[in-house]
Amino acid sequence: MIDFGTLKYENDLILAIVQDRVSKEVIMCAYMNREALEKTVETGVAHYWSRSRQKLWKKGETSGHVQKVEEIRIDCDMDSVLLLVDQIGGACHMGYRSCFYRNLEGKIIGEKVFEPDEVY
Amino acid sequence: MIDFGTLKYENDLILAIVQDRVSKEVIMCAYMNREALEKTVETGVAHYWSRSRQKLWKKGETSGHVQKVEEIRIDCDMDSVLLLVDQIGGACHMGYRSCFYRNLEGKIIGEKVFEPDEVY
Repeated sequence: MIDFGTLKYENDLILAIVQDRVSKEVIMCAYMNREALEKTVETGVAHYWSRSRQKLWKKGETSGHVQKVEEIRIDCDMDSVLLLVDQIGGACHMGYRSCFYRNLEGKIIGEKVFEPDEVY
Repeated sequence: MIDFGTLKYENDLILAIVQDRVSKEVIMCAYMNREALEKTVETGVAHYWSRSRQKLWKKGETSGHVQKVEEIRIDCDMDSVLLLVDQIGGACHMGYRSCFYRNLEGKIIGEKVFEPDEVY
């Protein structure tokens, strides 16, 4: 196991890119501090650091849309990780499977899987 | 086209996650300023902002390992983009197809596609 102390945190955070293990769709990105990474490895369920709320955040705590982490990869610079997950429901708070549900033309190309009003 | 002025830059930068269009492998992440994004759209070839060198950076300028950008998606928060690219050679300066060539156990699981010494 890579020593989490050797990772290159920036303001105590590393970037986490999250990919659906099966469809290979990139579904979101977020930040982790060391505690979030440790919790993720320990529990097998994705935890992040919410920069807006300044607290540890278990993804899906409110919505039930948790992410079961199947594999974690680390990049050459040791400053970001790639999570391969089984996403329950949708990753995006807007109701889409992926946060990247629009192209640069502004056209919606992602799949809507829930109604935010019914979940939050 | 989404107005690039409406994107949520942090210190003038947005995050770019780069995915191989065909294999769906996440191959790297980097930062873009507005100019890099505009250059990317204009030329169809990925440009980033190098935070270490503090300059615009055409990916593959030295190595020839350019990225032809087929599609750009934007996330719900408007603070990161996903690039779907055709990667010539490898994305990683260590010679791998993807920068995420190791798992959290430190085991190399990525494909080596060139010898850095012969390229840089």
